[in-house]
Amino acid sequence: MLTKSEQRDDIVAIMAGIGRKARAAARPLANAPTALKNKALAAMADAIVRDEAAILEANAIDLANGEEAGLTPAMMDRLKLDAGRIKAIVAGIREIAGLQDPVGDVIAEWDRPNGLKIERVRTPLGVIGVIYESRPNVTADAGALCFKAGNPVILRAGSDSANSSAAIHACMVEGLKSVGLPEASIQLVPVTDRAAVGEMLKGLDGNLDVIVPRGGKSLVARVQSEARVPVFAHLEGICHLYIDRSADLDMAVKIAVNAKMRRTGICGAAETLLVDRAVAKTHLAPILDALAKAGCAIRASEEARALWPAAEQATDADWTTEYLDAIISVALVDGVGGAIDHIETYSSHHTEAIVADDPAAVERFFAEIDSAILLHNASTQFADGGEFGMGAEIGIATGKMHARGPVGVEQLTSFKYRVRGTGQVRA
Amino acid sequence: MLTKSEQRDDIVAIMAGIGRKARAAARPLANAPTALKNKALAAMADAIVRDEAAILEANAIDLANGEEAGLTPAMMDRLKLDAGRIKAIVAGIREIAGLQDPVGDVIAEWDRPNGLKIERVRTPLGVIGVIYESRPNVTADAGALCFKAGNPVILRAGSDSANSSAAIHACMVEGLKSVGLPEASIQLVPVTDRAAVGEMLKGLDGNLDVIVPRGGKSLVARVQSEARVPVFAHLEGICHLYIDRSADLDMAVKIAVNAKMRRTGICGAAETLLVDRAVAKTHLAPILDALAKAGCAIRASEEARALWPAAEQATDADWTTEYLDAIISVALVDGVGGAIDHIETYSSHHTEAIVADDPAAVERFFAEIDSAILLHNASTQFADGGEFGMGAEIGIATGKMHARGPVGVEQLTSFKYRVRGTGQVRA
Repeated sequence: MLTKSEQRDDIVAIMAGIGRKARAAARPLANAPTALKNKALAAMADAIVRDEAAILEANAIDLANGEEAGLTPAMMDRLKLDAGRIKAIVAGIREIAGLQDPVGDVIAEWDRPNGLKIERVRTPLGVIGVIYESRPNVTADAGALCFKAGNPVILRAGSDSANSSAAIHACMVEGLKSVGLPEASIQLVPVTDRAAVGEMLKGLDGNLDVIVPRGGKSLVARVQSEARVPVFAHLEGICHLYIDRSADLDMAVKIAVNAKMRRTGICGAAETLLVDRAVAKTHLAPILDALAKAGCAIRASEEARALWPAAEQATDADWTTEYLDAIISVALVDGVGGAIDHIETYSSHHTEAIVADDPAAVERFFAEIDSAILLHNASTQFADGGEFGMGAEIGIATGKMHARGPVGVEQLTSFKYRVRGTGQVRA
Repeated sequence: MLTKSEQRDDIVAIMAGIGRKARAAARPLANAPTALKNKALAAMADAIVRDEAAILEANAIDLANGEEAGLTPAMMDRLKLDAGRIKAIVAGIREIAGLQDPVGDVIAEWDRPNGLKIERVRTPLGVIGVIYESRPNVTADAGALCFKAGNPVILRAGSDSANSSAAIHACMVEGLKSVGLPEASIQLVPVTDRAAVGEMLKGLDGNLDVIVPRGGKSLVARVQSEARVPVFAHLEGICHLYIDRSADLDMAVKIAVNAKMRRTGICGAAETLLVDRAVAKTHLAPILDALAKAGCAIRASEEARALWPAAEQATDADWTTEYLDAIISVALVDGVGGAIDHIETYSSHHTEAIVADDPAAVERFFAEIDSAILLHNASTQFADGGEFGMGAEIGIATGKMHARGPVGVEQLTSFKYRVRGTGQVRA
């Protein structure tokens, strides 16, 4: 048996090898024609359809292990695969095959007075590491999306889903092999030890260019604080909905209920409702009545409670809490300026919405709030790559470097300049 | 007198305070109208014109200190200001005032089937740290460029240029104050101890978003290896010029001499010449004759020396050396495929050029080489933000995250989404 330190050396060596293989795959993958990549994606989807029984068997092992390990019902649900979920995985891969290939897209072009013609063209971004927890579908979703953009990907599944992820990954590799692209284009880390994650966070000797964590807050927090490479992620979505004095009340009610209650567990769900003091007397109660009727608990500032006494008292902690549950915090503010001040103080800079008819209030809200997504007269729950028309997304980023908002196939690219001359030299 | 550890605590506290002040300036600066920023820039330029004598006096102190410290002639030259250089600084600030303000630019817009109108809009990027060495003009150039894009900047000048930089910085602050913008929009680190740099590399408690090193290779290497925040930089420019079998010989000669010899000390200067074996017998000698005549030393592979025996023998180290001098390494390759292999093996991914008439060779060179800038029938010395029509640049980046190639005012921005609805809720 290996000693702990030998195991540790092993993991370092294995992860370094994975990094080198990923880097070596970058050039053939970057040069792969769109049709070849799409053919590989189709073969991946076909293999998953064919191997459904084997994938479900692998998943049954993970579920049995999870039961024994005492996973929570929520974790067991995330882990579980069934025919419907496998169908969704296959549909997801086929959707990615149908997306426009961003590599080679000319995103800007201009001519210089000396006759040089300059183009800015999309290129793959580099080797992408995806670190996720119990959802085995990420193996296919993230693997296919990174691949479509020409990026080698290193997938590190949680140990809970090791068998399910390995079964799906085998189908992805089969698709790669069927068209002669490097198997290392999509690698699954074969080590469940958490030290493997540590190696990825260190950047695999420069062979990992960006990390995307997919999972709960503690995973994202660890990755954000320890990673030595850039991270595309959001730690939390403390999203605000502001009801301006110029708001249409019916619309405000409808949007508030949808923004909070359509799905409470997603990052774009509203967590704080801000109501303009100027209309609090008329607007607050109908909105809170509707939320309460929909099953939402209300935690309000003292001033708001005076107008709607059934609310619990909010504490300072409520303004910075992402409930991901049927709970909303409520405060009154002095118009759009007060809303901006509250949001700039407490927001996680993910998504904020304003309901208003006054264009000046909307433009100020749009100009002065520094969040990834701002919406006017629409629900915060539209914060989603699919809803933005980007197709599949690997997540939503709140950082301001490179990718911000939904991270789709275009956000997984970089660019280079192509300059065409006729013999120009510099004076 | 303070003990070493008290001094160290002091520096940590000073730098943390600088970070906090920069972050606090971000919001007013992001919301500053273009006209106000341009008025501040004009006032900065005017203050420098007015204070020319004081700036030259401060520079004389730096020069005297430098003389005493035994700075090299090259360092002394970089440090030195005179009327002409101050004129250039002033012209640079005025040019930046004339650039289009990128903040608020709509860079993409589209409508969704449900009626939502989505816009992607440029925003400032965040707090930028600029770490530089002896050139005092960076204080004005980098300060003004970051400011134009709405970003607070923390400038850390080398101790050699401390007095000159402080004198220029005072003029920048005067411009800020004249329009009521926060003085902390452009801060100069008042500590010459290198520990201040260490604090910046750690990211100032999350208050520094990106670092731009401006200086020699050892500074860039230290920043790249130690920074915990993103870095926009290039470590070196090992730029290649490839002469294809389809090249026009006269054009090849002209471009080779310009790419290598116009200025040998800039990052876009060619360091390696690759010649297609198919035309080596006819093309190599005229090109090397012209380079030698222009004063360039030639270090060639054995095979190339057989055709041009006056060359020195190149060693393996030559393929990875940025000479920044009148020296060029020369190798023969098998057509464009051989050139691509050589470049992908040895390049620093900065800038590469091909001289060719065959469109297939050009397209392959453009598609398969992963460098920031690729040129066809033009000199590598065009690798420059000004030559690209971007106006001023803060440097050239070879990384693939966020900024790549010349880093101008647009590359110093991020973006956010503005979504306009009419009451849409998500199904």
